[in-house]
Order: sequence, then structure tokens, then C-alpha cells
Amino acid sequence: MNLKSIEKRLSFGGQQCKYSHYSEALQCDMTFSIYLPSNREQKKIPLIWWLSGLTCTDDNFSQKSGFQSLAEKYQVAVIIPDTSPRGENVADDEAWDLGQGAGFYVNATQSPWAKNYQMYTYITEELSAIAPTLVPEFSGQESIMGHSMGGHGALVIGMKNADRFKSISAFSPILSPSQVPWGIKAFSSYLGEDQATWKEWDSTELIQESGMPPILISQGSADTFYPEQLEETTFLEHAQKNNQEVQYSKEEGYDHSYFFIATFLDEHFAFHMKHLK
Amino acid sequence: MNLKSIEKRLSFGGQQCKYSHYSEALQCDMTFSIYLPSNREQKKIPLIWWLSGLTCTDDNFSQKSGFQSLAEKYQVAVIIPDTSPRGENVADDEAWDLGQGAGFYVNATQSPWAKNYQMYTYITEELSAIAPTLVPEFSGQESIMGHSMGGHGALVIGMKNADRFKSISAFSPILSPSQVPWGIKAFSSYLGEDQATWKEWDSTELIQESGMPPILISQGSADTFYPEQLEETTFLEHAQKNNQEVQYSKEEGYDHSYFFIATFLDEHFAFHMKHLK
Repeated sequence: MNLKSIEKRLSFGGQQCKYSHYSEALQCDMTFSIYLPSNREQKKIPLIWWLSGLTCTDDNFSQKSGFQSLAEKYQVAVIIPDTSPRGENVADDEAWDLGQGAGFYVNATQSPWAKNYQMYTYITEELSAIAPTLVPEFSGQESIMGHSMGGHGALVIGMKNADRFKSISAFSPILSPSQVPWGIKAFSSYLGEDQATWKEWDSTELIQESGMPPILISQGSADTFYPEQLEETTFLEHAQKNNQEVQYSKEEGYDHSYFFIATFLDEHFAFHMKHLK
Repeated sequence: MNLKSIEKRLSFGGQQCKYSHYSEALQCDMTFSIYLPSNREQKKIPLIWWLSGLTCTDDNFSQKSGFQSLAEKYQVAVIIPDTSPRGENVADDEAWDLGQGAGFYVNATQSPWAKNYQMYTYITEELSAIAPTLVPEFSGQESIMGHSMGGHGALVIGMKNADRFKSISAFSPILSPSQVPWGIKAFSSYLGEDQATWKEWDSTELIQESGMPPILISQGSADTFYPEQLEETTFLEHAQKNNQEVQYSKEEGYDHSYFFIATFLDEHFAFHMKHLK
């Protein structure tokens, strides 16, 4: 493991850190951020994963959400991966919703994407091996959350690893990627035209299985991508049919931005902390 | 007044707004942001001015400080001007610390700057006439704060208008611009080589006058620009000699970034609210 420390900044008494490393899963250099609260040497600290949306890097949540005050208040570590493999030798597309910045947290099977776009393996195996080494007194307890494409990622990763993650939450998630333009475009490219292969990456399919972690979802009513990309009806029907614990909150007047995320982030942290204890 | 609404976003129950307008003082189009808390129609609301640092626009504080949760908590409006005139027809310099993004909140007297660089008049007159029209139940009470170059701006504008501003606060301010590289470069360009003309724009001079508003200053000990650009000794000596109320807090391990600002912003809002009531 060739981890390189790029930045360590004090924030609300804890440490906001940025690292880079060569990723074997993605075959390129990657950057991620992690926040460690102030009492990390004195007590057992759980870990929350944050997955960002289209076009984002690890910086968006670090700089725009104000999450550090909450991570410090609740004494939890937070890790923020990038949203795709990166670099000149990594396949890309001119569109902002495909290629670099738009990995969709799947393992691609199609050319030219398959070589680098293994974000699921990167997060659930490679970065999951690194993260605990950075949290001095890691409690072993983990939850996962995300925004938009990262909300889809948090739900898929959380449900595919239901024995590992204590709770899942999402802001404005792409709940039915196989049915909406963003998801169809990405899945067609990364996974190919056979839609049978899309099911394992679609929350609306996964929620039909039993024993999923509790889920909290917040959606702004004034989100310009809602409902076209973020439609929830089928997901919620499947959840109800399966007696799955899903709290879906429609927030009147809020949009798709980090102003929305910042406003309801305390509620999401409180939800996770309830399940991490 | 040709005010154009560009954005209105819900944030912590209040409204984060962005406007553009043609500025007579600056002879160019300008953009600013203002936050209005949720109860703005029901009760008298004071106003806090935030002045940003070098290279910033109104977006940096809006997006990176998390101030909205505090403005909502304390029920205060916050207005955030840009840091200089802008546009193709506005004089500029290749350096990041001179010209556009680096107005230093003075009224320039030298060519080619004098035509547009009238930031002091823009803020204290032009924008000061606009701001109250946007706060439905404005209490008439104002305070001012800022960061780095904007900390210098807040101190200078606050002290030059001591009967208007109830309190002044600053993060990592340029306290003695006439003595440090950033200030000497800017003042030489905007005000000319006669240093007698610099005095009215220098906090360390202004603090020698009596009847100044109470002042709170926070400075990170790990700030890479400290003490070279942000030296405080003479300012504090003059304040003490003049029995001026200055609280100067050195915060161990914090740097020059918005991670530092976000951490201590509640303390600054609480300070201002004490004087705004």
C-alpha cells in the first residue's frame, strides 16, 4: 500500500485529511479524503462512507456540506472516495454524465471501460482495506450515504453488503437507474445492452431481497432532476411489499444542491449514529 | 436600480439569493449574494456584511463556510459582495493578488485602476442602499466581518463608519497593509507611492482614533501567510494604547482556509449578535 498524505487540516477540532495512492482495482492514481474526529485516540470510532454525485471529486462534500461539525459532534470518521478512475490513460467521454466523474459505483464489463471502471471493487475491497488503517480506534461499525449518483452507489453497495453496513442514507438518489436517462446511458456503456446484467446494480431490484439495512432518503421537491432521473414510486412499492424499513422524506422547496444536503445532514448523521451504536 | 435575481435556493429554512446589477460606482456589472432567514417577515432582522479574501467571489463564503445554519439560528441576514469590479473592460493584472479578485476595499486614485476600483464607495453607499430593500423587516442594525483581505476590508469599513457598524470581526486579517507585501503591492498600485494617502485604509492607523466598535479577531497559528502578511503586533499595541476593545484569539494548529473559518464562525456570529441586540 503506497499511501501518500497530501493534506491534513484542522477542522472543528478534528483532522480533515487527503490521501493519494495507486489503485490496483482501477489501474490509476486515486485521491480520497477522510475526516477523523478529535477524540479518535481515546474511544472507539465508527466510520461513515460518503459517495458523491456526477462531476464531483472528494472535495465537493469536504468543502460544501459542513459535515465536519457533525462528524465531530457525533465522533465518527467519514471517508469520501472520488467518483471514478482518473487520468490521461483512463477512458473518458465528452459528456459530463459518462466516464471520468461518473463511475456509477459499478464494475464495468464493456470496452473501453472495463480496464479502469471497477469502482465497486475499489470501494468495497481496496479502499475498505485502507480505511481502517487510518482510524486509530476503529470500532468496526460502518454506515454508508451519498448524493444523487452517490445515493444510488450508497444504496447498491449498502444492500449488496447488508451484513456489513448498519444503515444506508441518500440525498436525491437515482433509485431506479435501469429506468431513467442517466442510469440507462451509464449502464448501457459500462455493462452493455443486456439488461439482465443491470439488475444487481439497481436499488429497485435489490430492495426486493430481505434483510436489508434500514434506509433514510431525503428528496427536495424543487429538484430540477426530480422526478425524471430520481423517480421513487417503484422503489418504495418494492420496499413496502418486502416490509423493508425505508423512511422517504420529501422536503418542500429544496433543490439538488449542497445547500439542500447541508440543511438535512444532521438528520442523516443522527440516523446513522442510532444504528452504529 | 436594475437588480436582477439570478438564484434563490432554500437553505436551512431561509433563502440563499444571488443578484446581479450594474454598478454606477464600479462602472461594470456586479454579482452579490444575500441570505435571508426564515422568520424575515415576522420580526426585525439585523444585517451582517461578509467581505471575502483574495481571488474570492461571493460564492466562496456562500458555499464553503456553512454560515447559513448560523444566520438561521441567530435570525440575521448576511450580505456577501464580490471582491472587486469584474469584466473584460475592467483593468486587471496577471498576478492573483492585484486587479480583479483583489480590490482591497479601497477607492483607487491611480490609473488604470481609478475608473472601476471604487470598492469602498460601492459597499458603503451603492450596495448599502440596495441591501435594506432586500430585507423585509430590516432592523437598521449592522455589523461587518471578513477574511484575510476581507478582514482588512471589514476593519477599515467598520472603523471608518464607526457610528454605523455595531461590531467588527475578522478571520486572519491583513492588519497592517502598509507594512506587508500584499498591502504594499496593492496600495502602491491603487493609491500611488505617497504613503500618506495609505493611512486612511490601514487598520493599524484607524485604531488610533477613539470610539471604534468592539472588534473580534481569530488567527490560525498554522496559517502559511502568518505572520508575514498578517502581522498583528503594532495593531494590538495601538488598540491597547487607545483603550480599544479588541479580542485577538490565536487558534492553535488552524490554517488560512475555510475549514478554519467554519470552525470558529459560530463564535463570531454570537459576538455580533450580542452587539446587534
